[in-house]
Parts: sequence; structure tokens; C-alpha cells
Amino acid sequence: MEEHLSKRNEDFSEWYTDVIQRAELADYSPVRGCMVIRPYGYALWEAIQQALDRRFKETGHQNAYFPLFIPYSFIQKESEHVEGFSPQLAVVTHGGGQKLEEPLIVRPTSEAIIGHMYSKWIKSYRDLPVLINQWCNVVRWEMRTRLFLRTTEFLWQEGHTAHATYEEAEEETLRMLNVYADFAEREAAVPVIQGRKSESEKFPGALVTYCIEAMMGDRRALQSATSHNLGQNFAKAFDIQYLDRNNELQYCWTTSWGLSTRLIGAIIMVHGDDKGLRLPPRLAPIQAVIVPIYKSDEERSQVLEVARQTLKKLQAHGVRVHLDDREEYTPGWKFNEWELRGVPVRVEIGPRDVEQDQVVLARRDLAGKEGKQTVPQGRLPEALTRLLDDIQQNLFRQAREFREKHTYEPKDYEELKQAVEQGFAWAYWCGSAECEAHIQEETKATNRCIPLDQEPVPQGAKCVRCGKPAKERAIFARAY
Amino acid sequence: MEEHLSKRNEDFSEWYTDVIQRAELADYSPVRGCMVIRPYGYALWEAIQQALDRRFKETGHQNAYFPLFIPYSFIQKESEHVEGFSPQLAVVTHGGGQKLEEPLIVRPTSEAIIGHMYSKWIKSYRDLPVLINQWCNVVRWEMRTRLFLRTTEFLWQEGHTAHATYEEAEEETLRMLNVYADFAEREAAVPVIQGRKSESEKFPGALVTYCIEAMMGDRRALQSATSHNLGQNFAKAFDIQYLDRNNELQYCWTTSWGLSTRLIGAIIMVHGDDKGLRLPPRLAPIQAVIVPIYKSDEERSQVLEVARQTLKKLQAHGVRVHLDDREEYTPGWKFNEWELRGVPVRVEIGPRDVEQDQVVLARRDLAGKEGKQTVPQGRLPEALTRLLDDIQQNLFRQAREFREKHTYEPKDYEELKQAVEQGFAWAYWCGSAECEAHIQEETKATNRCIPLDQEPVPQGAKCVRCGKPAKERAIFARAY
Repeated sequence: MEEHLSKRNEDFSEWYTDVIQRAELADYSPVRGCMVIRPYGYALWEAIQQALDRRFKETGHQNAYFPLFIPYSFIQKESEHVEGFSPQLAVVTHGGGQKLEEPLIVRPTSEAIIGHMYSKWIKSYRDLPVLINQWCNVVRWEMRTRLFLRTTEFLWQEGHTAHATYEEAEEETLRMLNVYADFAEREAAVPVIQGRKSESEKFPGALVTYCIEAMMGDRRALQSATSHNLGQNFAKAFDIQYLDRNNELQYCWTTSWGLSTRLIGAIIMVHGDDKGLRLPPRLAPIQAVIVPIYKSDEERSQVLEVARQTLKKLQAHGVRVHLDDREEYTPGWKFNEWELRGVPVRVEIGPRDVEQDQVVLARRDLAGKEGKQTVPQGRLPEALTRLLDDIQQNLFRQAREFREKHTYEPKDYEELKQAVEQGFAWAYWCGSAECEAHIQEETKATNRCIPLDQEPVPQGAKCVRCGKPAKERAIFARAY
Repeated sequence: MEEHLSKRNEDFSEWYTDVIQRAELADYSPVRGCMVIRPYGYALWEAIQQALDRRFKETGHQNAYFPLFIPYSFIQKESEHVEGFSPQLAVVTHGGGQKLEEPLIVRPTSEAIIGHMYSKWIKSYRDLPVLINQWCNVVRWEMRTRLFLRTTEFLWQEGHTAHATYEEAEEETLRMLNVYADFAEREAAVPVIQGRKSESEKFPGALVTYCIEAMMGDRRALQSATSHNLGQNFAKAFDIQYLDRNNELQYCWTTSWGLSTRLIGAIIMVHGDDKGLRLPPRLAPIQAVIVPIYKSDEERSQVLEVARQTLKKLQAHGVRVHLDDREEYTPGWKFNEWELRGVPVRVEIGPRDVEQDQVVLARRDLAGKEGKQTVPQGRLPEALTRLLDDIQQNLFRQAREFREKHTYEPKDYEELKQAVEQGFAWAYWCGSAECEAHIQEETKATNRCIPLDQEPVPQGAKCVRCGKPAKERAIFARAY
């Protein structure tokens, strides 16, 4: 801990990679663009997986597993899809010492291979809906990579569903968007805006793409999950048909939706501070760390005994707790280390606490005396649980206030230019791809989404750039 | 269900693939040698993952994730390793539209990439042991494939640990072998023999390979998991060194151990019968299925109401239970379907049961009246839990008896030849690779393992093939 972390406000990007490596969330690998997710980062991903998987199953989905490799010809079947993904493909040309007759691509996403299987499995309306999710790795060849945010290989889940009607597919698409928003806000304490992507920003092959967008600590936007209504595009490309109740052959309506290890980047960038990570208690691999404090050998044995009892008591109460009883480090060093690693609560136990049958709880989200309280051992489990809830709420509230403070409603193009330097700009827009492209060129801000929750466009509202009648309001921001 | 399953005793291999496809565990994919794991099969894998992951964490291991791709040069660093895996590699030569400077291989196992990272992370004896596991997909190009047993891509876990001494590495290797044996016997109800692989059968690059071997329903052997003491071979190839307490640089001692989706094949082949799967209750995705039986509409509404209450009651009791209330199928059809899918207990509820406040429980592992009992609703949860335990034990007992019945101790080579036609042959062996190779050539039986649990070799015991003094006893059998 001798070296200091980069300052978050001075160089956000350096701070970000610093924190990841120092907190041992991830590391660079010798393979260009691929990262290693270290145990602490992977434990965070496991917590994300559990929270999402529970929600998927509660909404009737089942997990399955489809092949990593996809024949090159499959990707070509949906024209927008192939155009969108071609530049990013990793291609296997040799297997078992032989050149392959047809090259295989490593899945960048699995619509193609899953579409093929659905066409085999789905025969009748009785087989619908098909509600399947897959947890897996995907590969998209990236030129510029950044840990968690953009890596050549990443981990994600991809849901793929097939339905009898457009309405059911649209309902599913929005249901899963809601699941993502609920997860992001309740579990990750990351406030999100649910919106629709513009035509230029949607998924290659989708009818409509919905997303959740969040504001990072440097006021840039991060797309945190997407949910696509694929219409009948993939059903037609892969011949996914069913016999309806009148015994007539119909194409299915399909959806897909995904969330990736990128969300770990959001958690780091939304909540982190100059001391390091601040993990939301509901996802934190370690919710509380016990740090024993002593000088003499006699103190040591008394304090450690109480620390071990406290560990057991809290574990029995269902808290994810760790006792840091390493001899080779001082308490002060440990305080810094666990602050860097974002553990929500530190439990300090010293000789005086042993004597008075109490502990000191220190919150990660409130520095100094303000964040400290002394709690009798008898009330510890309940007090800690309440404190963890409090911290969870507080992180969410801080992030929402930060976003609100940096959200603007520019009246004209000059104001928009200034606004996107500072945060999110909610602006009226004519709906044309041309204006979108000009805005991006001139301000480096992209159309993040058209928020679902918006008032009808008032009479006379005009596009912030071209002055033509506004179609709707969109959020423009610089983004990851 | 009109078509009958292939008979298990007539064509075991056809029965095997039939059951997998009919029970919807897995399906063939359009990618040569790759399978699709369908939701029911994947739920079984999830149950396996949970049972193993809990054991890994209890023994101090953490999960992490390493890249899918490995630079070709890495694989070449350990000479036996490259020789063993070269013929099976899938090679990525193009990425993002460009030919790569150095081809990447898709991991067949991750010793190389993990070894590289460990050399970066491990500095001092204080960093040891490193106890990491990874859940992932791996690819080994296979010529002849079979669902679950041998597929080009498969799912597995691979543990990789680094230690300060040989003794610690050996202890870890045996600890994880024990974890696998405990899992296989208690959770999968598959009796296994813990043994050491001969020199010719060990993992490429290992000092010693341990394994668990099980007897399948056709009396062939299946290697169900392996645990390798890698000695300092990989530490030397990847420069994994640490400063010991005397500040001297030492090479680490490493281990690796893995269990794959192949284990699903074992569960099918050990327990299945002519009616289909028989899943061990502790891993079964559905432990009990409720089948309502009625004729009139009035009966229907009464029976369904009780069935739904029963569902809730059993769910609250922690049983994984499913209510099959489909209208389009008869109870008889459903009985067959759930027997095929191996659900351990069927809960039948008809009008008479409603009237008498009872249900009928039918065991999957005991056919006909013998397997049926009537249970009052009031005692249902406890009776069902006990029954599931009983079935778990019974499946294990049946499998163990079957193995014992088909295990022989041939006195001479002629007896060995006959024995391996019928099952496992425990035979004295001189320990030479030459005898091993001859036995394989002449009998198609391979040296499965040298069981750990064996008596000292008696005076005068001779190798079953060459007649030279025996070194130990090995199991010879035909194998998957």
C-alpha cells in the first residue's frame, strides 16, 4: 500500500485501471485484449449471476448451453447481423491438425446457432413460448480494450426466446428490460434510465433494442444491458416456424437480451472514490471484515478469541464476513487495504472493546468519525444487517443525486454542446439519423437512448440541432 | 411416446443416445462434434456444479476466470504437454479481419495460461498456497464423438493450485480426489474406485495422475474425474517461483484436477433402465412430479385444487417438485414421460385420494406395486423426504452390487481375457508399459488404474501376463 492510487478526479481512466489491479479484481493477460478475472472480481460476478439467475428463473426461464463455434455460413443468413459482426469475428480455420472445410467463428453472440436449434425443436404453438438463457463466454475482436468495459473475450448471459405473436415478444423484451433495471438499482445500487435505442444504435438484426443507461463517476454514459425484440427477422433467416391453432404455418417472433461482465465496470465507476472501490453490500463478496487490534501477546489472545466468536456469530446470521488475522500487517495497513477493496463495513475489535463487550463499526461510504459507531456485541448481528441496508440505500441515493445534478435540458444547440461536456443532455430531436450523426461528429456525444418514461412532446418543440419538429426526447452524452 | 426406447441390454449404445435425446438432455448441433445441452440436461449440470462448488469452497478454493485463447508458443513450453495435446487443438488464425501474427489455440485445458499468470502473481511463500478453480468450456478436437462422453467442446471445472512443497501438492491432489469420490458416491450415487494412473495413462506433463473410475451399465469403465500432481514440471516451464523463508528462490509445486459434463454420461449409464433415466434424488432437477388423475370436470377442479396445494406444501418443504397439469395428455402418457426423464418419485392424486386426504407415491427405482405406497397428506412432506433418501441409497447400493458382481480376480492370462469380457479384472501386474500395451492389444482392455486401497502384494505373486514378479494390482477393463 506504499504507492498511492491515482486521483479519481485527476485521471479517471488511470484511477479506474489502478483500482482494478490494486484491488485484484482483474489483470491483463498475455493474449491481446483478453483479461483474467481474479478471484475477488469473479466472486463479484458470481454474486451478479446469482441475483440475475434468480430473477430469470422467477420469470419462467431455463438455462441451457449451445456450442462456442458457429459455422461461418450461419452468421451470413441474417444480413444486418453479418454486417454488424463481421469486423469483430475470431475465426477457427484448423482443427485436429487439419484445415477445416468451412471455417468456424467463435460466437460473438448466439442468435444464429440458437435460431438453428429452435427451428428444429419448435413444431407447434404448444411448444411456445421457448424461454432459454445461457451463461457463457463470447468473443468480439476489439481494437482498443479496457478491463471489464471492452475486452475481446467477455462473460455474459444471453437470453433467447421464441413466441407466437409480436405482442408476446414485445412483452418479453420489456419484461427483461425491467428485470435488468430492477437488478441494477436494487442489487448494484446503480440508477438506470430505461430507453429505446435509435435506429443507428440498435442491435444488428433487431426490430427494436431497449437498454438501460447509467451515468459513471466521470459523467459519461455506460450502456449496462440490452433487450432486443428481433421481430421475425431471425425466424425468417433460420426458418423458425410453428403450426398455429388453425394448423397454419407461422414464423415465430423472437427476442434476445444480455448483460455482461461490463456491469462490474459500472459498479467500479459509479461508486468508487479516491480510496478505491465501494461495493454495494448486496453484491459485495465480503460484506464486513473484522480487524483485530492489539499490542501485547495477552491482548492478542483475548482479542483474537473474541474476533473468532464474532466471525462465527455473523456467519451464522448469514453475513459474508472475513476475519483478517494476518500477523504481518498492522491494523492501519489493513484498514487501507479493505477500503481499497470496497468492503462496506469494517468491524474493529480492540482490548477496550473486549472489556466492554462491544465492537466498533466503520462504514466504507462515510469517512471519519461520522461513519463510526460503537455497538454492543448483543445487538451486533441486527445492527450490522441494518447498517448494510443503509449503505446499500446510501450508495444508490448518492449515485442518483450525482446523475440528477449532471443532467441538463439544453434549449438550443449551444447549450447542448456545453451540456454534454458536463453530463447527460435530455434534448428534443427530430428522429433523423442525420442529426444524430452530426451531433456525434460535432460534440462527441452519442444518442444514448430515447427514455421510455417521457412526457408527450409539447406543441412547437423543435429538434435541438435542425430546428424541424421534434419527434421525441433523447439523451445525448459521451459514452464508453 | 408412441415409439419405444431401444432395449438397454440389446444395444446399450443406441439406448444411450436414444435416452439422451428422448429425455431432452442434449441434442446434436450442426457443428461437428459439438453438442447442445438442453434445459433438462443443463439443470442436471447446475446441480452437479452446486454440489461440487460447495465442496471446493469448503476446502478453501476460490473461482476465477482465465482467457479462452492461449498463444501457441505457451503450449509448447512443457514438452509432454504439447505432445499430448497437439493432435487435438482448434486454432484461431484470424481475428477482426486480419491474419494473426501468432495463432491462438482454444484452450484444451489451462495449465499453460494459468501457469503464466501464477508466475506473475506469486512472489513469496506468503502468497502460497494459491487455490483457484475455474468453471468453463474447453475444446479438444475429437474424431469419434458421443454425447456427453466425448465431444469437441465440453464444460468442466479445472482446479489449479500452487504450493511450497511436494508434500503439500501431493496432499492437495489426494484431497481433491477425495472430494470427487465423495461427490460421485453421495450425490450422483455412482460408486467409484480411487486409483493412480499408470505411466502410459497419466496426464501429459504430470508427475502422477489419480482418478476415480466407475463401472457403467454395460460393464465398461468410465474415468469420471482426475487429479494431477504436476510436480515442478509446469513451474519450471512457466517460471513459477517464490522466495522462501530463507529468502531463496524456489520453484513451486503445482496441481490440477477436473471433472466434466462427462459425469452426466456416467449418471445415465450407471442408473438408467429400459424405461429411461433414473436420476439420483440429490441431483435430480425435478425430485417429484405431481400427476393429477380425473375424468369429469367436477373431479378435475377438485383434484387440481388439491394438486396445487400439494405443490406449494412440498415446495415450502424444499422439495424440487413439478405439477404436470397439461390438459392434452393422459395420466398414463405422463407416467411414461416422467419415467423416461428419470424423476425419482411420482405423486398421484385422484378423486379417491382427495376424498381420503391422501396421495399415492410411486418410486421410479421399484416397478409395479412394490414401489407404490399411500400416504396421508398430513405426513406427506416427511414421507417424501425419507423416500427420496431411500431411493438415493438404493441407487447407490444397486450400482455397487452390480460392480461387485462383475468384478473378477483372474488367476492367469486366460481368465483375464474372459474377465474383461464381463467386467473389471483386478490383476497382479509387473508395472511395465510393455505388458500394459500387450494386454490392450490382445484384449481391448486398458489399465484403468492402480487402486489406492489394496493389500501389499503377497510373496510370489506374478504379473498376469509376463509372469515376472508383480509390483501391484491394477484394474483392467474395456473403457469409454
